[in-house]
Amino acid sequence: MAFSFFNKLRNKKQHLKLIKQELDKVRDVIARQVEPFGPHVRPYMEHVCRGRGKMIRPGLVLLTAAATGGITEKHITYAAMLELLHMASLVHDDVLDKADTRRDIATPNALWGNELAVLLGDTMLAQAMVMGAELGDSRFIRRMALATRELCEGEVEQSTRLWDMDMTRAEYYELIRKKTAVLFALAMFGSAMLQGLDEEMVEQLERMGTLLGISYQIYDDCLDLTGSEDAAGKTLGTDAAKGKLTLPVFFLMEASNEDVAGYVHGCVAARQEIDFSRVRHTEAFAEAIRLSVAEGLSRNAEAREVLWMLPESEARSALAEMTYRLDEMLEDCCP
Amino acid sequence: MAFSFFNKLRNKKQHLKLIKQELDKVRDVIARQVEPFGPHVRPYMEHVCRGRGKMIRPGLVLLTAAATGGITEKHITYAAMLELLHMASLVHDDVLDKADTRRDIATPNALWGNELAVLLGDTMLAQAMVMGAELGDSRFIRRMALATRELCEGEVEQSTRLWDMDMTRAEYYELIRKKTAVLFALAMFGSAMLQGLDEEMVEQLERMGTLLGISYQIYDDCLDLTGSEDAAGKTLGTDAAKGKLTLPVFFLMEASNEDVAGYVHGCVAARQEIDFSRVRHTEAFAEAIRLSVAEGLSRNAEAREVLWMLPESEARSALAEMTYRLDEMLEDCCP
Repeated sequence: MAFSFFNKLRNKKQHLKLIKQELDKVRDVIARQVEPFGPHVRPYMEHVCRGRGKMIRPGLVLLTAAATGGITEKHITYAAMLELLHMASLVHDDVLDKADTRRDIATPNALWGNELAVLLGDTMLAQAMVMGAELGDSRFIRRMALATRELCEGEVEQSTRLWDMDMTRAEYYELIRKKTAVLFALAMFGSAMLQGLDEEMVEQLERMGTLLGISYQIYDDCLDLTGSEDAAGKTLGTDAAKGKLTLPVFFLMEASNEDVAGYVHGCVAARQEIDFSRVRHTEAFAEAIRLSVAEGLSRNAEAREVLWMLPESEARSALAEMTYRLDEMLEDCCP
Repeated sequence: MAFSFFNKLRNKKQHLKLIKQELDKVRDVIARQVEPFGPHVRPYMEHVCRGRGKMIRPGLVLLTAAATGGITEKHITYAAMLELLHMASLVHDDVLDKADTRRDIATPNALWGNELAVLLGDTMLAQAMVMGAELGDSRFIRRMALATRELCEGEVEQSTRLWDMDMTRAEYYELIRKKTAVLFALAMFGSAMLQGLDEEMVEQLERMGTLLGISYQIYDDCLDLTGSEDAAGKTLGTDAAKGKLTLPVFFLMEASNEDVAGYVHGCVAARQEIDFSRVRHTEAFAEAIRLSVAEGLSRNAEAREVLWMLPESEARSALAEMTYRLDEMLEDCCP
């Protein structure tokens, strides 16, 4: 069987060990992004640059680089730039979601109000642009700008299509591609570009990033309905309840249990908050999560196929490991 | 006297006639920036791209280009990009200021709420980045990103230094350089760069932009205290009252009329809204405005000196005309 080799790799977090030192360097570069700012801006930037995220996007940059010839200084900067861009979008997300904590630390809007949080997000985005402009030619920068635009576009679309019964599942996938997968794709695309790989290889790695990003968002959508807030380090259960049509909600509306399907469908049609405690114990709910998880798993498998184009290496195994870790995270969502 | 030639040019708005057609092209390019967006984002972008501003930054780009060899397609795109960047910052400003109208049309936050307005501003900024990436090399793009960062930094600083008694007048000038003059400077810098002018000339034109931008912000700060809302097309009297230490406020705190100085100083020290109806009728107030206006006028005069480096042309006269128009606007603020 084609994946027998990768299937042996299920020793958790091995993929992170391989790039541990380089991830620390990325964190250092992020921390240094406060340096251009004066005393009236710097403390706020220090707060947001101190947060410790999962570093998924930097991880993808570094592992892709390691698997295709080695990690350079440009890859470190690029990884930091992407994480900063991601962090900027989170600062604005937290304003919009009125979230008080993120990654277990108080959000800028909770600490200093919405006004400063909006401006701080803008400043982080601008600083990411400055970093991006130092990395490559204008064609490369254009790709970063286009991805940033798609990210914003996805966020706008999500916010304007709450409770939108006309949204199809294909549109849902396109929406999460924009709001989440675009940065995963950019991570692998950019890493490959900086490595000087040929066009076909760059394109395939970008496709792998897109697949993983979509899978990751499906995981996040399932976690919102099934996870524990302590483990997730953020408020849960709010997305779908507030009218975001996520994949599990689509499956719930199509459930064979007519009570469940009718209730969820009725809530969406009436633009009314879904009370998930009414459906969480049903087999229909478990089935909706399982079907969603299966969609994620199949994308991970497709993503792994791209890895056969790369020469065998520890880093290639680590990339495979990362996809298996995502499999596990998805599977853990099943009730 | 050195400026006798320019002094003859005071026929209002002549500078706009010279570039009227090109400004229309810039408006067309701005209107076309909605095209990449799908049906769930586009209507919102169309609303914000329809607004008709004073087009000061595009005007500076075009006149600089016309005075240094001619307006190219790149100048048109660059002018549109700068205006879009400026418009993006206004969309976020209106969220922060809770403003309902801007340029006589309803603001995005008034129409669709803060959430969408924040995301829309982000999207406009990203689209400006895409346009910027198509214009030049990475060194040029880096300058645009640095300017955007300074713009954001200025906004953060303004918001964190309300009622800040420790702020010096030098710091006020540095703050308005960042929040306003940076885009004026970028307009003239970029126009000269796209024209391929030598380094000394680019630097001088950038300096001229900085001077005009600072002067323009002084005008705006005076207008906030003396203008009519109908004529300005926006809500006035809020900046200084809400603790922004603007130049007229500095002069009021130093007024020889101890009642006025004491009242304003006391409000600032107590972080208490200044009621300008209590001071507007005084000679001290008129003097504070006159002193502020004089600061603006002297910067305009210094800006005009740069024009002698350019060959005589209709466009050079038009640039001079623009600075005289700003003189008039400043003078009109005097009670």
